[in-house]
Amino acid sequence: MKTWQSRIKGGSSSLFEDFTSSVHQDQRLAPYDVMVSVAHARALSRASVIKPDEAEQLVSALTEIGEEIRSGSFTWRDELEDVHSHVEARLQEKVGDLGGALHAGRSRNDQIAADLRLYVKDASLSALGAILALQHAFLELGRRYQDALIPSYTHLQQAQPVLIAQPLLAHVSMLGRDWERLRDGLARTDRSPLGSGAVAGSGYPLDRAFLAQQAGFSTVIENATDAVSDRDFLVEFVSCCALCMTHLSRFAEDLILWSTQEFGFVKLPDAFASGSSMMPQKKNPDVAELVRGKAALVIGDLTGILSLIKSLPLAYNRDLQEDKTPLFHAADTLLAALEICTAMVAELEFDPQRTEASISSFSLATDLADYLVSKGMPFRRAHSTVAELVAECLERGRALTDLSAVELETASPLFSAMPRPTSRTSVKRKQTAGSTGPEQIEAQLQAALQLLTDREAETKRLSPAQ
Amino acid sequence: MKTWQSRIKGGSSSLFEDFTSSVHQDQRLAPYDVMVSVAHARALSRASVIKPDEAEQLVSALTEIGEEIRSGSFTWRDELEDVHSHVEARLQEKVGDLGGALHAGRSRNDQIAADLRLYVKDASLSALGAILALQHAFLELGRRYQDALIPSYTHLQQAQPVLIAQPLLAHVSMLGRDWERLRDGLARTDRSPLGSGAVAGSGYPLDRAFLAQQAGFSTVIENATDAVSDRDFLVEFVSCCALCMTHLSRFAEDLILWSTQEFGFVKLPDAFASGSSMMPQKKNPDVAELVRGKAALVIGDLTGILSLIKSLPLAYNRDLQEDKTPLFHAADTLLAALEICTAMVAELEFDPQRTEASISSFSLATDLADYLVSKGMPFRRAHSTVAELVAECLERGRALTDLSAVELETASPLFSAMPRPTSRTSVKRKQTAGSTGPEQIEAQLQAALQLLTDREAETKRLSPAQ
Amino acid sequence: MKTWQSRIKGGSSSLFEDFTSSVHQDQRLAPYDVMVSVAHARALSRASVIKPDEAEQLVSALTEIGEEIRSGSFTWRDELEDVHSHVEARLQEKVGDLGGALHAGRSRNDQIAADLRLYVKDASLSALGAILALQHAFLELGRRYQDALIPSYTHLQQAQPVLIAQPLLAHVSMLGRDWERLRDGLARTDRSPLGSGAVAGSGYPLDRAFLAQQAGFSTVIENATDAVSDRDFLVEFVSCCALCMTHLSRFAEDLILWSTQEFGFVKLPDAFASGSSMMPQKKNPDVAELVRGKAALVIGDLTGILSLIKSLPLAYNRDLQEDKTPLFHAADTLLAALEICTAMVAELEFDPQRTEASISSFSLATDLADYLVSKGMPFRRAHSTVAELVAECLERGRALTDLSAVELETASPLFSAMPRPTSRTSVKRKQTAGSTGPEQIEAQLQAALQLLTDREAETKRLSPAQ
Amino acid sequence: MKTWQSRIKGGSSSLFEDFTSSVHQDQRLAPYDVMVSVAHARALSRASVIKPDEAEQLVSALTEIGEEIRSGSFTWRDELEDVHSHVEARLQEKVGDLGGALHAGRSRNDQIAADLRLYVKDASLSALGAILALQHAFLELGRRYQDALIPSYTHLQQAQPVLIAQPLLAHVSMLGRDWERLRDGLARTDRSPLGSGAVAGSGYPLDRAFLAQQAGFSTVIENATDAVSDRDFLVEFVSCCALCMTHLSRFAEDLILWSTQEFGFVKLPDAFASGSSMMPQKKNPDVAELVRGKAALVIGDLTGILSLIKSLPLAYNRDLQEDKTPLFHAADTLLAALEICTAMVAELEFDPQRTEASISSFSLATDLADYLVSKGMPFRRAHSTVAELVAECLERGRALTDLSAVELETASPLFSAMPRPTSRTSVKRKQTAGSTGPEQIEAQLQAALQLLTDREAETKRLSPAQ
Repeated sequence: MKTWQSRIKGGSSSLFEDFTSSVHQDQRLAPYDVMVSVAHARALSRASVIKPDEAEQLVSALTEIGEEIRSGSFTWRDELEDVHSHVEARLQEKVGDLGGALHAGRSRNDQIAADLRLYVKDASLSALGAILALQHAFLELGRRYQDALIPSYTHLQQAQPVLIAQPLLAHVSMLGRDWERLRDGLARTDRSPLGSGAVAGSGYPLDRAFLAQQAGFSTVIENATDAVSDRDFLVEFVSCCALCMTHLSRFAEDLILWSTQEFGFVKLPDAFASGSSMMPQKKNPDVAELVRGKAALVIGDLTGILSLIKSLPLAYNRDLQEDKTPLFHAADTLLAALEICTAMVAELEFDPQRTEASISSFSLATDLADYLVSKGMPFRRAHSTVAELVAECLERGRALTDLSAVELETASPLFSAMPRPTSRTSVKRKQTAGSTGPEQIEAQLQAALQLLTDREAETKRLSPAQ
Repeated sequence: MKTWQSRIKGGSSSLFEDFTSSVHQDQRLAPYDVMVSVAHARALSRASVIKPDEAEQLVSALTEIGEEIRSGSFTWRDELEDVHSHVEARLQEKVGDLGGALHAGRSRNDQIAADLRLYVKDASLSALGAILALQHAFLELGRRYQDALIPSYTHLQQAQPVLIAQPLLAHVSMLGRDWERLRDGLARTDRSPLGSGAVAGSGYPLDRAFLAQQAGFSTVIENATDAVSDRDFLVEFVSCCALCMTHLSRFAEDLILWSTQEFGFVKLPDAFASGSSMMPQKKNPDVAELVRGKAALVIGDLTGILSLIKSLPLAYNRDLQEDKTPLFHAADTLLAALEICTAMVAELEFDPQRTEASISSFSLATDLADYLVSKGMPFRRAHSTVAELVAECLERGRALTDLSAVELETASPLFSAMPRPTSRTSVKRKQTAGSTGPEQIEAQLQAALQLLTDREAETKRLSPAQ
Repeated sequence: MKTWQSRIKGGSSSLFEDFTSSVHQDQRLAPYDVMVSVAHARALSRASVIKPDEAEQLVSALTEIGEEIRSGSFTWRDELEDVHSHVEARLQEKVGDLGGALHAGRSRNDQIAADLRLYVKDASLSALGAILALQHAFLELGRRYQDALIPSYTHLQQAQPVLIAQPLLAHVSMLGRDWERLRDGLARTDRSPLGSGAVAGSGYPLDRAFLAQQAGFSTVIENATDAVSDRDFLVEFVSCCALCMTHLSRFAEDLILWSTQEFGFVKLPDAFASGSSMMPQKKNPDVAELVRGKAALVIGDLTGILSLIKSLPLAYNRDLQEDKTPLFHAADTLLAALEICTAMVAELEFDPQRTEASISSFSLATDLADYLVSKGMPFRRAHSTVAELVAECLERGRALTDLSAVELETASPLFSAMPRPTSRTSVKRKQTAGSTGPEQIEAQLQAALQLLTDREAETKRLSPAQ
Repeated sequence: MKTWQSRIKGGSSSLFEDFTSSVHQDQRLAPYDVMVSVAHARALSRASVIKPDEAEQLVSALTEIGEEIRSGSFTWRDELEDVHSHVEARLQEKVGDLGGALHAGRSRNDQIAADLRLYVKDASLSALGAILALQHAFLELGRRYQDALIPSYTHLQQAQPVLIAQPLLAHVSMLGRDWERLRDGLARTDRSPLGSGAVAGSGYPLDRAFLAQQAGFSTVIENATDAVSDRDFLVEFVSCCALCMTHLSRFAEDLILWSTQEFGFVKLPDAFASGSSMMPQKKNPDVAELVRGKAALVIGDLTGILSLIKSLPLAYNRDLQEDKTPLFHAADTLLAALEICTAMVAELEFDPQRTEASISSFSLATDLADYLVSKGMPFRRAHSTVAELVAECLERGRALTDLSAVELETASPLFSAMPRPTSRTSVKRKQTAGSTGPEQIEAQLQAALQLLTDREAETKRLSPAQ
């Protein structure tokens, strides 16, 4: 029995029920729907639409229903179309006709908007915490290999030697911005649509600030039509998921490269790799590959939700029911990916001998050019002088470090007193803030740790008291 | 116990299992996996890798497993990572060590590619049939209102009067191209990757043509590396789904418009509408709205799958496991949408009085201009003469048909002998092929019906004998 | 002559030049490239890499180049691959070898990141201003029709009567969140990558805080590798564009509906409509249609840029060159759409008689149900009582307001003393915050105006002093 | 002066003109617009709407205009909104009032649909040819290194040794399906919308088959409403572009990997690489990176066009003007990418010593397991026996080929008579069709070449006679 059955005479076909039912999806929202209903019961009483003891009866029955949902004893039935109908039907079983009084002054339109916002709030808070955990893991990994060298890359060609912490800190920084974006979005999610009715406001004198506070929102969305029709809090959250997953996919790509036979930079923890059913020797970086693949689907989630909302007339349209598919997929995927990356990073082992040995002598070419500049040659000419040396070496299959003092001086007399550069001296020369110089790495590690500590405190403040 | 457990010592964490398991998704592929395994058992025997009676034992155990899957008695276990492991484990329970012989010369890479192709074949055939059914429903609806008039629109502004069948036949045509695309894609899907091993071909003398035929494929994909790594059959299928859903979303949009209070052109069957929990008068076109919304998500599926494949190195990468999420979603959505649209179109009722009465007199403006042209005025001047008349009428709140003979002749003496145009004469004047003229509509309806009949026969030919 | 030509012996084919050149796109960045180069010249001098008077020479030549670019006298040449090469080549024409000194300690990687960030800063500030202007136009339109009634819609079915300002204020609210998001993103964009070198930091003692301040950034991005490789400021900006365009597409959709013959709610300003080449009577809502269409392409921009970045290894990769296509398209589209919507809203005319007359009597059904609740009937029973009445009226082709007192009392004796509801009493009954009640509308209009004033001041503070 | 100016009194603002003008985009369609107009002139004469000599005058003036466009002497003016207005305005300059007669019986709606289809036909034919050229280049490269060994990969981990031609032939196969898809789509594009008028058909007795043939179409799209409103030929073409670019991105990824210092498998032709402005040693695989990046944007094009069309009511809507942006971008990108890849593949050099030497001994593990199977051990047990050996070797840092006969026999006595496997014997063992065995490679190369020859002939047949 639908809540609107009297108006629609024909009954509905089971084809219709299957096609339109959202219970499979929105039963995840049941705990929030109960919270919202408790708030509404209290607001109705405050507005004298129902009596205080009626409100108490409703609240206590709803609390029981909340318990049933949490414990799994709640019965989901195919003939009820959505989560709201389930809660209301169960309520009527418990309190009879009084259950039918609860819906005065509200609509499923403001209800579902509130349920979704409460869900996105929780998902955002979980993601904020999970990001901090992964950042911690990266920082600890950086500390563990603080003196170890590795090539850096641009265009996937070796660029200059760096300390291993340098790329790891890059990932910490990216995640830091993901954290900021989620926090900023959270402030826009944490606004209450309750009391907006179907589209035009409620005909009952409901106190919207009270409703918001009772349901756990920080503030109220002003316009009632906007409140029931807009889903940009959800788009913003899925955008954050898509961008954060994109960041993780870049780390996954590096990890896949680093664990090839050809690079050989890391040893994947056995617990995060799998074998082949056919080839006995295989050890595959499955987790990293799946993170990469899942990032693609979250991009698809974002495309889907934007395309869904595009061109919808005001206000609520049933199309919006479909917003839950990309939302839940994006949230679940991000949280799982953050969690498994954290566990994997914690157990990652670099092979510092191999990473250092892999650095090509040509990675020092910039150091040679910089030396010429320090002796007075304009940079562009220094660059081309060294480039000629590199080309010669390559032609004759020699390393840049194989060149004799005489050969160097022939290229430019300014080379005469140059101390021979090594990967380590190259790294030490970097002294700009945020660079790979050892002191700069130390400073970066410390600053990052401090920021994490501050943000842990901020995340706690943003979380509802339990 | 994984099939590759010996190589990977550490065991895998449950975090890993949860993150990488695909059973939840790929158990839908189990019947195909059994078919493919039966084919492989026979091919191994033919290649003398196993004995004929061993093959028979395997085939008969696999057949039982197929039955268990179909009947729902098969047990899915969390500790087995994918559908292949499940079938193999059950096989070993039934035939012991011999079960372990089946995997010789193959890999999960060629197996999953074959499973997916068989699934896409079936889904394509279902979609071909479902499209024909919806086209039938449109044709019947067009016949039912063969003489009824309705405004046509460009820019959602009334353009010219048409017969109701005209826009309905447009939808039949769009769906007809969807049918062609799916059929063309089916030919590319129906190629067997079996016998390709992990990436390089098999070390056993397997007869790939025999394997293909046994598993129900029409032909063989030549290159083994391509066979295990490419998913373009899947992208092509999801593309077809996205475009067909986009077509359905356009029909849904028209339906939503037509059932507004303002248009009032159709009465939605009660079984395909719902009411409001708050507003007792509401009858909402939910199905059409959901079709529109679901189209957006299928666009997201396509984005996701393309982004997933982009930049993957050869050959199989675990990212590909994620291809099943958009594939199944797109296929399920398209089939459900086609089915419910068919049922809804079958029961759709137009209000032919209202549709005819809604046609604005200004929709006849082109007929006036055409009349002037027939009397020798160049079209561009005729157009501007009539446009002036329209502007005048609008300014004075009059209909174009209210103009007196004198007023018309003042605008142009060529109007003097003009028979007054009506919606019906306007429609009758259209004689180009495919136009809305009554004979043309009759011709369109007949040609469309003939095409459907031919295509039903073709679909039957493409379907495997049961 | 490329800046790296010495190393690459073969020269490059013109095919290569055409395929890789970015000048066509990045010449828009030239003014920013000059700013960044000026900052670098000063930082080199401060770090004693060049002499103060050399720096002055460079700065003054760069200033001239900036003038040439602004005035259009700068020559763009096909053989120079990007904007950086153009500026450097021109510099060498002006100051000879000294021009070659400028590139010491920097790379095109940190340069382009800085150029792009400065561009996105400017584009964000323009969008912030343009959003406020459109919000103003909506508020003024709401004021102009403050007492006029219009149907509100859910599922595009008439829901309840509202004041015209109600949906307009919904659009103001949506745009308000777009403004917030752009502002939050701006804070993340306004960070300097300068001094990061190619990937590992610079070998020269450059003061990054000084560089940032000279180039007009508020702060510094810490990690050098992150600084050159990350583009999330750009993704975030394009996300904001996509969501804001999606919001505009919803307004466009309503406008297109409102200007149909069937709705007839608004008269589009002639300056924002076009006619038909064939049908003399047409007046098409082209601007609204194009806004809707352009929104789709900006969603595509976002998909493209995310898919571009997904799976890129650290750090800079040439793929990133392609980020400019979606960035510029999204920014240009958003700014143009905001501007033309502002002009169009300013001239929009409603037909308040028609909007009020269009409100169906059934829109008052909720008011009847609410009345029953106020007399003590539980809501769910009241809803179904009224729904029966509605169904009866529809069957007999009567308006809900046609029912006699007797008929109402037959349905429920509680109706006996009910004052007959009208659209206007229905609106007046709404008293919750943000609802369509007249006082609530007045409060919404005032609060919105106050917020705009505050945000205009904030936008000014965020803009660089000219 | 617009062709519809008389109806719209207010004139249009320049803001409007800038926002709605499509000339910048659609001037590429001018040659097709002339072809279509020539066909229409002849059809009007055939239908006796104009006189034969008038038709001749129009055709000859249009032919001149076509020449002016081709030679670049045609003047594009900002005040004319689209390509159709330009051609008509120029025509009136040449033939006066008679020019205004040409538009009788047609609309810009059927005109633009025809122009676009003719463009997509040409672009498809170009792509068909360009794909064949790239396939040729791959085949020649495979021939050049026909005996050379290289590791194959799954999960980017070394799998089994293959001949270099094996992965190259995989790319040939992928491109082969792109070719098929484009050809199939071409058949659907090559249908004429001419004679459909604005939406309902034409009021003049135009012979649509004659129109189609005159404009160079193979057949006619039946329904007039469908003919002017549908763009699925365009979506299908952009889908083909997106999938083909995705294929190219996979090749690009391999190329980028193969040219790293760590893999070192190929030497990029100097003409297809670039250097660094800062690091003198760099040689970057820019073309491959750009191909990868551009693939992402074409995915965005597809998303954009689908999202554009979704939910559009029938029939033509101005949103469709925006279809040209993704269409032209996708077509240009695909053609340029195919062309440069062809040139690059033609000059690619492998380092066959390095590729062979890179093959890990563990790549032979499957061969060992297969040997045990051939001696009667069930595969699953053989797999695990060899996996234990691999694990032991790795632990003790030994190659699989280092194991002594005794050690092997300890693992399994079945190993006793085994000839030691090498990369080359491993490759030779593969005898399934499409595998990497030398005869199979030869067969694949020959079959591929034959297919190319056939398809070159087919492409020629599909191309219009010049």
